[in-house]
Amino acid sequence: MDFKIGVLAGDGIGPEIVEQAIKVMDAVGAKFGHNFNYTKALVGAIAIDETGDPYPDATHQVCMDSDAVLFGAIGDPKYDNNPAAKVRPEQGLLGMRKKLGLYANIRPVTTFPSLLHKSPLRQDIVEGADLVVIRELTGGIYFGARGRSEDLTSAFDTCVYTVEEIERILRLAYEYAGKRNKRVTVVDKANVLASSRLWREVAQRIEKEYTDIETDYMLVDNAAMQLIQWPKKFDVMVTENMFGDILSDEASVITGSMGLLPSASVGRETSVFEPIHGSYPQAAGKDIANPLATVLSAAMLLESLDLLEEAQAVRDVVNRSIDAEVVTVDIAGDSKAYKTSEVGTWLAENL
Amino acid sequence: MDFKIGVLAGDGIGPEIVEQAIKVMDAVGAKFGHNFNYTKALVGAIAIDETGDPYPDATHQVCMDSDAVLFGAIGDPKYDNNPAAKVRPEQGLLGMRKKLGLYANIRPVTTFPSLLHKSPLRQDIVEGADLVVIRELTGGIYFGARGRSEDLTSAFDTCVYTVEEIERILRLAYEYAGKRNKRVTVVDKANVLASSRLWREVAQRIEKEYTDIETDYMLVDNAAMQLIQWPKKFDVMVTENMFGDILSDEASVITGSMGLLPSASVGRETSVFEPIHGSYPQAAGKDIANPLATVLSAAMLLESLDLLEEAQAVRDVVNRSIDAEVVTVDIAGDSKAYKTSEVGTWLAENL
Ligand SMILES: CC(C)[C@H](C(=O)O)[C@@H](O)C(=O)O
Ligand SMILES: CC(C)[C@H](C(=O)O)[C@@H](O)C(=O)O
Repeated sequence: MDFKIGVLAGDGIGPEIVEQAIKVMDAVGAKFGHNFNYTKALVGAIAIDETGDPYPDATHQVCMDSDAVLFGAIGDPKYDNNPAAKVRPEQGLLGMRKKLGLYANIRPVTTFPSLLHKSPLRQDIVEGADLVVIRELTGGIYFGARGRSEDLTSAFDTCVYTVEEIERILRLAYEYAGKRNKRVTVVDKANVLASSRLWREVAQRIEKEYTDIETDYMLVDNAAMQLIQWPKKFDVMVTENMFGDILSDEASVITGSMGLLPSASVGRETSVFEPIHGSYPQAAGKDIANPLATVLSAAMLLESLDLLEEAQAVRDVVNRSIDAEVVTVDIAGDSKAYKTSEVGTWLAENL
Repeated sequence: MDFKIGVLAGDGIGPEIVEQAIKVMDAVGAKFGHNFNYTKALVGAIAIDETGDPYPDATHQVCMDSDAVLFGAIGDPKYDNNPAAKVRPEQGLLGMRKKLGLYANIRPVTTFPSLLHKSPLRQDIVEGADLVVIRELTGGIYFGARGRSEDLTSAFDTCVYTVEEIERILRLAYEYAGKRNKRVTVVDKANVLASSRLWREVAQRIEKEYTDIETDYMLVDNAAMQLIQWPKKFDVMVTENMFGDILSDEASVITGSMGLLPSASVGRETSVFEPIHGSYPQAAGKDIANPLATVLSAAMLLESLDLLEEAQAVRDVVNRSIDAEVVTVDIAGDSKAYKTSEVGTWLAENL
């Protein structure tokens, strides 16, 4: 089959890690008889530098025309600590989410047995943890009205949610849980926020439709605790945009496999797949960054195209590379560290 | 000296743990020649049951007339999972915060060497962690306009901050850091929120006045990660109300001493001191709950009255009780578990 893949490598280590994922996808293509046609486009700081816009129209068009989008990372130190700069790379990200309608961010958090010692948590607490954080991505306080008072002495942000937005993300969470361990934890702050009370009302209605799924309600402060105390008790956690930003990042460090975690942002028109880590500017161009999170994001991408066997083949070869210690310096331990490009080539050759 | 202490024991285990703190304060009074005059008042579910109001006017008056307030815990299972109930115990808490102007919630997070094995984190990660989370408590999305659209298909909340509110809490954080390890981490989401950008602007101005304090800016998602990865790198963390709710709870579990952590809510008129744990209804009336967090809250109360030596004496006797294993079942391990009341009596007698 033929597939059109948008490739938005972005900043820092973005280009070099995306390159490895493409090697692996090409190996998948050769093995399973598919044709992946890649179209590159600019995003992030590099897009600002070249066009003045972190998510140019041309890039949007590429995404709209693609069956799926592979994304690297964005962010450049020259924009850090300058949150008031007129144009910032993050605006590109938020613009992309809104324009493509990427309403659900999905982050599986899994453990890799040989990396458990990297976790800041006790081994017995994290061993076998396997959860997914599903974050609503185009609503809430990220996209509500905001501003300053006229005299500049105060500022405000607005968190808005509609029944439709809540229902859409909840359904996706329940579908996901149906294919997993059949538990959904709905996280909100219903004892304080009106928007959270609406979330809970909608959830209490939707939950009745999924009789085989167990539903749990948890306040966000409690969830922030339990994620560390008992990560294994969670299967699918679903929550609104801001809480999801915090909890999905918190969840990503508990297993010690942060450099290996992929994500998907599911949209109406297309979906975007990217590693959860950032653009790691200090490592850019050095051929040392770990490409596995991006390769595993490519596996999620294949899955979204219904190429399930292909996705599994990618996951398998990643596991074999870890077992064979063909890994980059961040997870190499005492064994030899391989280059980014060497890991990518090994994966492609051993798929 | 004479002091007027408001006593709001609240629900669940509240009354029995507050009783132990009072035993200890009376021992302090006898030893150092002070007179603590206690006035009890209703708060929480018990106040709803008796007056229909979780924070009755009479209680407010008691607080206003007190030099400091000792608080137990609130919350009753009959109000759980019913966030839409007309009157809820939490409303009492929020009402109290607003009416007393309790603008700063202060939560020291410390380790107790003999309890480190209780931490979900690796011992080397938490050993020696010593930080304070300072949370703005009367502003932000907790107290902004909220509601439903007329057709009930959407709901909103508003986060508002004024320069004055931000400046007040930041100054308190810098004063605190000055007496500690001279580092302040300002946590916000300045890459997205207008209110956070105001926070950062104000912080960038205030920081210049405290030349001996090192300031660090951190996005809330990053803070949620680093708290687990490197809890020892923090000294004073300061943030807005909602982020503080999440991060202070997250921080409370990292050291494994959650049942021992006190808090202070500092106000214009008076300040309120309470354990960070909840009302633990399953244990109510059983004389098994750990009173140490409440006793350590009393130590913070004494400090607020400028009774520094007295506060230290309370902390010392708490440490000695742990060393002597005169502790309740939650931290007793293999040794004998003492009753709540026995621990309180031991502390008072050994002060
Ligand atoms: C860069 C920032 C705007 C973004 C967010 O908060 O959504 C990031 O933290 C993320 O989680 O993708
Ligand atoms: C009960 C609730 C309203 C309260 C809050 O969110 O402030 C609690 O979680 C706390 O942190 O004291």
